[in-house]
Parts: sequence; C-alpha cells; structure tokens
Amino acid sequence: MLDRPIFEIDARTGRARAGVLRLEHGEVRTPAFVPLASTGTVKGLHSAEVAALGYEMVLGNTFHLFIQPGHEQIARLSGLHEFMSWRRPIITDSGGFQVFSMGHGSVAEEIKRRRPGESRILSIDEEGVRFRSYLDGSERFMGPETSMEIQAALGSDIALAFDECTPFHVDRDYTARSTQRTHRWLDRCISWRERHAPGWQAFFGIVQGGVYEDLRLESAERIAGSRVDGVAVGGSLGQEKAQMREVVEWTLRALPEQLPRHLLGIGDVDDIVHAVGAGIDTFDCATPTRLGRHGTALVQDPESRWRMDLTRPPYREDARPIDERCPCPACREHTRAYLHYLARANEITAARLVTLHNLTFMKLLMDGLRAAIVEGRYEEHARRVLAGEAPYER
Amino acid sequence: MLDRPIFEIDARTGRARAGVLRLEHGEVRTPAFVPLASTGTVKGLHSAEVAALGYEMVLGNTFHLFIQPGHEQIARLSGLHEFMSWRRPIITDSGGFQVFSMGHGSVAEEIKRRRPGESRILSIDEEGVRFRSYLDGSERFMGPETSMEIQAALGSDIALAFDECTPFHVDRDYTARSTQRTHRWLDRCISWRERHAPGWQAFFGIVQGGVYEDLRLESAERIAGSRVDGVAVGGSLGQEKAQMREVVEWTLRALPEQLPRHLLGIGDVDDIVHAVGAGIDTFDCATPTRLGRHGTALVQDPESRWRMDLTRPPYREDARPIDERCPCPACREHTRAYLHYLARANEITAARLVTLHNLTFMKLLMDGLRAAIVEGRYEEHARRVLAGEAPYER
Repeated sequence: MLDRPIFEIDARTGRARAGVLRLEHGEVRTPAFVPLASTGTVKGLHSAEVAALGYEMVLGNTFHLFIQPGHEQIARLSGLHEFMSWRRPIITDSGGFQVFSMGHGSVAEEIKRRRPGESRILSIDEEGVRFRSYLDGSERFMGPETSMEIQAALGSDIALAFDECTPFHVDRDYTARSTQRTHRWLDRCISWRERHAPGWQAFFGIVQGGVYEDLRLESAERIAGSRVDGVAVGGSLGQEKAQMREVVEWTLRALPEQLPRHLLGIGDVDDIVHAVGAGIDTFDCATPTRLGRHGTALVQDPESRWRMDLTRPPYREDARPIDERCPCPACREHTRAYLHYLARANEITAARLVTLHNLTFMKLLMDGLRAAIVEGRYEEHARRVLAGEAPYER
Repeated sequence: MLDRPIFEIDARTGRARAGVLRLEHGEVRTPAFVPLASTGTVKGLHSAEVAALGYEMVLGNTFHLFIQPGHEQIARLSGLHEFMSWRRPIITDSGGFQVFSMGHGSVAEEIKRRRPGESRILSIDEEGVRFRSYLDGSERFMGPETSMEIQAALGSDIALAFDECTPFHVDRDYTARSTQRTHRWLDRCISWRERHAPGWQAFFGIVQGGVYEDLRLESAERIAGSRVDGVAVGGSLGQEKAQMREVVEWTLRALPEQLPRHLLGIGDVDDIVHAVGAGIDTFDCATPTRLGRHGTALVQDPESRWRMDLTRPPYREDARPIDERCPCPACREHTRAYLHYLARANEITAARLVTLHNLTFMKLLMDGLRAAIVEGRYEEHARRVLAGEAPYER
C-alpha cells in the first residue's frame, strides 16, 4: 500500500465514475480498457503503436513472464517497462488465474494451441501451487510470495494479489474455503510486499466469493479492510450476463468509494457499459485482441453481439470497410473482402489489422463512456451504446 | 509490348545504371529491390506501411493468387492494386517457378509448412502443367495463356512470361529442351497478350539456359528479339555465387542497353552489389522478409553474411538495438534481447519488427547504390558495402 491514494474521482453520474489513476509511470484516465500484453507484447503490435492508439496502461502476465523469459532476466534488463519499451503504466495479473486454470480444466486456449508440452498442476496446498511448465515440462512453484516477488522484479505499476480464481462448477463449500484461503494469501502477499516490493508499486487485492452474495460481501469487506491501493473483482461471475452483473453489484456495494476498482477478464461491450454504470473503473480482457487475431472485428451492432466474423462467406466480395466511420488503418485503407481473404489464408497481416481495429473500437468506446460521465449523461449514452448508436457517431 | 519504352536510364557508372521505370501505376527508380507480396500482402505489413518504407513496387504471385482467392475474384474486386490497397506499381511473377518447383522437389518451404494438402504435378507437356492444388487437392492447370489471363485479371503493371525454371541438377540436354519450350511458350504468351491483355500492362520475357553460356546467350537474344518491354533473368544461376555472377554477366552481354533487366529471386547483399555493377536494374527475393519472420535481421557485416540470427543465445540479454544507426522501429525502440525473446516465443510482433528492419535495410542499401551510380562512384561504394561500411553511414 502506498503512502498516498492513487485514485482521484473527477466526476460521477449515478454510480459511474470518471477518474484518474496516478501511478509510477504516469496517469490512466478511467473508465479504461486495459489491453492484454500477457507475454510482454500486445500480440502483433509494438509498444509505440499501442501508445499511439491512446492506451495509457497494458496488462502483463506474471505466469507467462515467469515461464518465459523469466522475471530475473527481465529484472536484469531493467524491468518490464524497459524490456518491452512501454513507458506508461503496467498492471500485472498475479498468475493465480493461469496456474489454477490448468487444474480446473480450462487452460487458456492460446496455450493449448501453441505450446509444446502439457502444463498441469502437481499439487495445490496452503503453501501454493506446484505445476509443470508448458514450455519444458520442468516443475515450478507459485505461491503468494513467489507471485509478489515476480511482480516486484517485473516492476509493474500495479501488482495484483495471488488468489485462487474459483471456477463456476464448484459448490458453495469449495468456494467458501477457497475464498478464505485467498484471504490468507492476501495477508501473505501484503506481508512480503511491505518488506520487499518497490515503494512505488501499488497493490490491488482480489475479491472472490463466486456467485454467493454473502461470500462476495465478506470478501469485498475483507479486501477493502486490508492494506491495498485498489480492488479487483475476480473469479466466477456466473454463467449468464444477468448473474455476472448481480455479482458485480453485490461486490461494489461493499467497497468504499475512494478505492479504484478493476474488473478482471470482462470485455464485452454490454458488460462494460453495465459495469461502468455500476462503478467499475478499469477492465482487462483477452477478447478484443484474441478475436482480432482470428478475424473477428468489433462492430457497433448489438444484434450481432458487437461482432463481425470476417472469415464468413458474406464478406468474400464485400468491398466496404468494416465500418466507414472508424479511423483505424483496417477501415481507412482496406475492405472486408481483403480482410476475409487474409484471415482465411492465415496471414499475420489480418491478425494485425483486425487487432488494430478492435483496439481502436475499444478506445473509442471507453472515451465515449468517460465523456458521458464527465458531462453527466451516462445513462442516455449507455442506452445509445446498447442500441448500436455509439461509440461511432454519425 | 507497349507502344512506348517504359525505361529511361538517368546515369551510368561502368555497366551499372540508375534509371526509372514508368508504369501504369507510377514510377520506380532503379536499381530497386522489390519486396514480395506473393499472396497479396507483404507478410505482416499492410500496404501503406510498405509505401511508407519508400518502396515503389511489390511483387505479386500468379500461382498463389490463382489458388487463393482466385484471379476472377480479384478482378471482380477491381484488380490486385485495389484488392490490396497498393496504388503503386506491381510486377507479377508468372507462376512458372511455383508449378515447376512442385515437380522438381523444392516446393517453397513456406507452402510446405503452412498448407494442408500436398501439391504435386500430375503432368507437364507442351500445353502446360497440370497439378493438384495445395489448398483443396483439386486438379488445376496452368500454361502460358492461363498465366497471361491471370496476370491480366490481376492487372499488374508488369506481367512475366510463363517459363520453366530449370533446376540446377538437370543436364545440358534437359536444359536445352526446356529452354526451347520456354521460348515457344513466350510466343504463346505474346500472342495471347496482344489480343487480350490491358493495353497498359508491360511484359517481360524470362531468359533461361541454365549454367550453359551458349544456351544463355541464345535465350537472351531470343527474348530481347521478341515483343517484350523488359527482360527477367531466371532459372538456375549455379550452385555457387561465382557461377551465378558469371551466368548473369553472360546473359546481360547479349541484352540491349535500353531494356530494363530484372534478376529473379536474388537478394543477398553481395549478389545485389555485383549484379547492379553488371547492369541489373531490379531484384525480388523472399529472403529479407522470410528471414525477418524467422528472427534473422540483416546487418552491415559481411563476416556474418549480413545476417544476425536474433534467436541465438548471445542476444538473450543484449540490450543494444540491432543497429543503432538504423531508423526502423525495431532499432529505434527495441533491444536485441526483446526481439530474441519475442522470436523464440513465436510472437508475430517479432516477425513484424524484424521484417520492418530488413526492408528498411534493403531500401537503404538500394538507395545507396543508386546514389553512387548517379554520382559516378559506384565502384568505390560497392567496395565499401562489401567491406561492411555501408549502407548505414557512421
């Protein structure tokens, strides 16, 4: 916990807030979407391009960077900012989600497809998680102290607590016990940090508690009552959007106004609009960049769940841009037909162009939400986004 | 053949020429390196980026674009320039090299790695080549008229004759017969073109003749005596650099000054320096972009054959740029250590950054050669390049 608050709220409309995070490497205006640079790169873009899109923070992944190239190496190369030449804020995920998702049977697809070895959990106990590296099969360990040590070595602006991300399919009893362990791990994270972490590194606890209102409230109060600079909402948020929104609202109810609030792994347009309305400040999600790599563009169309799968047959000879109002290079310079062809031919140019488009879309979306809060018209603007009338203006 | 010459020589130093190609979509100053956009994209870059690097022409591939997405589709989308949003000149390879390389046992590596089906030749006769598509196994045919028809549909600025690229390991007799067939195919190409091709499309014949001086001379005279706007030097250029240079010199001796001369598939720094000195005007080669995708950077170092394999262990913690004098984003913004890591992790960001570097290097190389010819100091400049003192100036 820093000796100063890192978050200032500039404006409110209802429960929605427009604010600014003041971090070691600069400021982040919120609400903000944080693109994933899990492996030290927003896949297909170099850091200057991500900055040119207007993003003020990216998310690095403790687990991935621990496995490859290793936090010691990144530390020797002056930390993650210098390593990837990104000189704005970085938030690092704790690695908890990745190590547990191996055991919970949902290893991130990207890993499954690209990596040689199989990763798997060898043991989970109070100490932490022992697992096999997907890279070389070697035995590795991660616990609260390891995660904090890695994040300190990476030198991120915001470190996240090491938690168990409890999956949806486990019962209330498992969720309660897991949440308690996450709280005990939080204390160990804080204890390690207060002795070893850089004085300027901010720290967010993670609220767990699954889909159970009392567990969420208890967890939120426990986290907010600890020495944290902000709070992240993690774990299973339910099987359906309605339940997810309810879980977010329960959690936020128990959190003090002044702490910044990050919602982990959520990035659909409608979810963001609702979560910002409920008081979330920042988001990270693989979806915009992952969809981009697979040829699906984000579009201003609720009917299609804001997605245009450019690999589909209707776009084969479609000479229009994805969206003629969009300022990105994919839209200014290229047709759906060309992107359709490139994506089907697995050309990396497609991955890159649609990623640029999707990140442009997300930035415009977030800028529009922020402006609406500042101007006291969030509700009306949210309605327009959900009706497909924004973020692009006619 | 156009009703006007397309090439003008601005300056000469010895046999080296600095000139300009005046084509339907603009001018190309020579000597020039022509990046490969075989599949309608310089892999990893979009067209505006290639133009921003200063390139004035790219090479599209008749064979690849015939297989996917098909020339009829590209024609319906207003031709290859519009399809890929590249509004400067395009030269199209004829497809001869690709169809024959299936049978000659050297299908381009890129095809081998990426494509589902196996491509293979079903028959070669006077008519043309019947083969199976690597995409779906379907039976396809390409002969001189097909190749011309595809190139006319693509609407390239320069079409190349359909030829058999005779490989190195065949004997003199095979080479002689193959070269004769290439000449008969040239006549059929011209005959089809004069009836059907767009009036503004220029046409280059291809000199074959293997490593046999008399066959090369005969072929060069035959091509130069036909209705062509320029000449490409193709086929096996020998097993060693010395032999390759000899073959190029024999060929050029038999060609008239005023025709532009393209050297197919050659792109090593020393080969380019010698070939420009011998009178070659344009080059295309997969090497700079292919090496880039695999993490090898072009560097100003003859000792290492102008290559720096960034995936090698010495670069793991090397905090220097590839070359501090290079203006590309990889060098201005990133370290060898970061590129080493990205390339080993198979991140497409590495493919892209090193491709940008290599194309920047090639552009500077060619600009330096051109300036030296214009200023009458080619020999001295060539010596400096070969000694590792250019194209970057200290």
